[in-house]
Amino acid sequence: MSPLLTLTTDYGSASSFPAQVKAVLLTAIPDARLVDVTHDVPAFDVFAGALVLEAAAPWFPRDAVHLAVVDPGVGTARRGIVVADPEGRRLVGPDNGLLTPFLGQGAKVWAVAEHGGVIPSPRHATFHGRDLFAPAAAYLARGGTAEALGPEVDDPVRLDWPAARRDGDVLLGEVLGADPFGNLVTSIRDADLGRGGVVEVDVGGRPARFVRTFGDGARGELLALVGSGGRLELAVREASAASSLGGGRGLAVRVVLGQAASP
Amino acid sequence: MSPLLTLTTDYGSASSFPAQVKAVLLTAIPDARLVDVTHDVPAFDVFAGALVLEAAAPWFPRDAVHLAVVDPGVGTARRGIVVADPEGRRLVGPDNGLLTPFLGQGAKVWAVAEHGGVIPSPRHATFHGRDLFAPAAAYLARGGTAEALGPEVDDPVRLDWPAARRDGDVLLGEVLGADPFGNLVTSIRDADLGRGGVVEVDVGGRPARFVRTFGDGARGELLALVGSGGRLELAVREASAASSLGGGRGLAVRVVLGQAASP
Amino acid sequence: MSPLLTLTTDYGSASSFPAQVKAVLLTAIPDARLVDVTHDVPAFDVFAGALVLEAAAPWFPRDAVHLAVVDPGVGTARRGIVVADPEGRRLVGPDNGLLTPFLGQGAKVWAVAEHGGVIPSPRHATFHGRDLFAPAAAYLARGGTAEALGPEVDDPVRLDWPAARRDGDVLLGEVLGADPFGNLVTSIRDADLGRGGVVEVDVGGRPARFVRTFGDGARGELLALVGSGGRLELAVREASAASSLGGGRGLAVRVVLGQAASP
Repeated sequence: MSPLLTLTTDYGSASSFPAQVKAVLLTAIPDARLVDVTHDVPAFDVFAGALVLEAAAPWFPRDAVHLAVVDPGVGTARRGIVVADPEGRRLVGPDNGLLTPFLGQGAKVWAVAEHGGVIPSPRHATFHGRDLFAPAAAYLARGGTAEALGPEVDDPVRLDWPAARRDGDVLLGEVLGADPFGNLVTSIRDADLGRGGVVEVDVGGRPARFVRTFGDGARGELLALVGSGGRLELAVREASAASSLGGGRGLAVRVVLGQAASP
Repeated sequence: MSPLLTLTTDYGSASSFPAQVKAVLLTAIPDARLVDVTHDVPAFDVFAGALVLEAAAPWFPRDAVHLAVVDPGVGTARRGIVVADPEGRRLVGPDNGLLTPFLGQGAKVWAVAEHGGVIPSPRHATFHGRDLFAPAAAYLARGGTAEALGPEVDDPVRLDWPAARRDGDVLLGEVLGADPFGNLVTSIRDADLGRGGVVEVDVGGRPARFVRTFGDGARGELLALVGSGGRLELAVREASAASSLGGGRGLAVRVVLGQAASP
Repeated sequence: MSPLLTLTTDYGSASSFPAQVKAVLLTAIPDARLVDVTHDVPAFDVFAGALVLEAAAPWFPRDAVHLAVVDPGVGTARRGIVVADPEGRRLVGPDNGLLTPFLGQGAKVWAVAEHGGVIPSPRHATFHGRDLFAPAAAYLARGGTAEALGPEVDDPVRLDWPAARRDGDVLLGEVLGADPFGNLVTSIRDADLGRGGVVEVDVGGRPARFVRTFGDGARGELLALVGSGGRLELAVREASAASSLGGGRGLAVRVVLGQAASP
C-alpha cells in the first residue's frame, strides 16, 4: 500500500500553505495518501495543536507518518525533530512541545538537521513546514530512517501536560480546551476515575451531573461524562458548555469518587 | 476501482473528529477514496445537513457510500440506519431525519445494530460517527450487505421536507436555507414552475425579478432564478440575498405563473 | 501515475459545491488525485484568488491541472479559458483575470466553448465550476488537448498586477493582501531588492525593521522580511501585522536600498 501521511497545522484552511506542503509531498511520493487532520489549530497555539494530535494520531495505522506544524518560533534556533513512539508511530515537527503527547517513556527523538543532512537546506527561513518538515516526512514515509535525518536528541521540549492529582477520594484536574460543540475536555482520564463510581463533579464551583452520554441529560443541564477520547468532558446537551460556563482552558475541575465495592 | 466514500458532518473542520473517522475508514480499507462533502454543517442542524446531502450525493457515482453524521441525539435510543435509495445509492447515518431526501418511494432502510451485529459495539456512547457508522460504511463499501448490519426498518424518521403548494396560478413555498454566497434556496423546484413562465416572484413581501442567471440582474437587485440544484433561488448579484432580506429559513415565497402557451 | 488536479474556489468549505465538482471529476477519472488548494477565497475576490494560485500552483508537478473558480460573472458573456504557461502548467477557469499570474510571456490561451465543443453545454447557467470547468479540466487531465476545447484567445482578461517601481535607491510598492497569520504580502519581490541590502522600510508611514526571519524580531515589533513566496512581507512576531497596521491591501510600502558593494 502507498505511504500514508497526515497533516496538522495552524496554517488556516483559507491559505495556500497546506497545498504547498501537499505539493512537496506529492512530488516526492506521487501515490501518497494524504489526510488532513486540520489546518485550523488556533494560530501559534502549540498546546491546542498537541491536544488535536493526541486525539487523532492513535487512530491511524501505525505506519502513518504525522506531519505537525504549529510553529511560532520558525526561523529561530529551535530544532526540528522526529519522534518515534513506543508503538511505532512517527511524527515530524518543531521541537517546541507540539509532540509532547508522544514523548512518554520509550519514545526516541532525532533532530532534523537543517544543513548537511539528507534534507536540502530550507529555501526560506519562515516556512519549515514546506521546506524542511515535509521533505523529512516524505523521507521517512518512503522508508528512510530517522537516524539519517540528524543526531539523536535526549532533551526534547515538553509542554507542561496537566494530569489529574488525587487527594484521598478527590480528583483535581482542569479544563484543557473545547471542541467545536463547546464540550470541554479535561485533564482527568477515564482510568483516573477508578471503579468506585463518581459521586460528585464540579467545575469552576458549579455542579455537573455525571452521566454515561449526552442523551442522559436534560436540555440546559451541565453534564460530566467520559468522552470519545477517554477524557472526562463537560457538556450541555445540544448546547455549548464553554458558553454556559463562560470559560475554557484552566478552569478547575473536582471529582469526588465513591468507594470501590469490595471484590 | 477502490471504494469511494463521502463524509458529511457537523464535526467542524477545526476538530480532530473527521480525521478520526477517516482513520477508521482507512484502517478498514487502505485504498479507500475519501471525499469530504463538508464538516461544517451548523452544529446539530439536521435539516441543513439533509439539504447539503441532497445537493451533493446525486453527483457521485452510484456505488459511492455516503457517511453522514449530524447527530444531536447520539447516545440516546435513536437508531443508526442504512438507506438504499431506488437509484442504488447507499447512505449511513443516524435515524433522525438527516437522510430524508433519500427516503422517497422505493427506498429501503435497515438498522445498524449496536450489539450482536457484524459491527463491534461502539467503544464510546458519544462518537457513533467513528465507532459505529464508519465501520458500517466500510462494511458496505467492501461489499457487505445492508441486511447483515441489522433488521429492516419500516418507520425511519422523516423531517418535514417542505414542498411547494399550488393554488391556481400561484405557487407558495418557503426559504430552506442560504449558501455561503447568501443565495437563498427555496422549497420550489424547477419542475413546479411548469412551462407557462414566471410572471411574478416575491419573498417576504418584496418583489424579485425572475431571470435566467445572476448576470441578468443589475447590482443590488433582488433576483429569482433556478439554481444549480434545480430549486428556485433568491439572489443579489455579487452580494448576499440573505443579508439583503435580513433573513433566511422560513421566509415565505410566492410565485405567480403564466399561462402555458397552447401547444 | 493517475492524473493530479487541484481546486481553488470561493465556494466555501461549508457548502456542497466543492464536493459536486469533485464528484464530476471522479466520475470522469475514477482514480484522479484531487488536492484542495482552498475553497475559502473571499467571495467574488478575483484578486485574492489569483494571489493564492500564484503561491500554490508552482509547487505542484508540472503535469497537474489546476481548476480555479472565483467567478462573480458566471452566467454572463464572460468566457471560460484554459491557460498553458511556458513551464507546461495548465489552468482552467473563468476569463476574468483570475489566472493573471500565469499569463506572462509565452503563455497560450484557449476558450472553453460552451456550445459545440467537446464539453457538453452546461446544465445550469450558475455553476460553471461543476458543469463546464470540471469537465474541461478532466478532459485535459485525461490527455485531451486545449485546442479541442475551443478557439485560441489572444486577449485574455488581465488584472492590474502591481509590481514594484524603482526610483533611484527607493522602491515603491503596496500591500496585496494578508495571510491567515496577518502577515502582509507586498508587490515587492526578492529580486527587486538587489544586492545592496535594505536600509529602511516603511509601510503607511510606519517604520519596519528588515530582518531575515520572524525570530529576529522582538515581540510587537513591526518587521519586514522576504517571505516564503519570494515577496517582501510585513509581519509582527507571534501577532498580526494586519491588525497592528489597521489595514491591508493597497497600503503603500517604501524601501530604501543600500549601495551594492563594488565587486
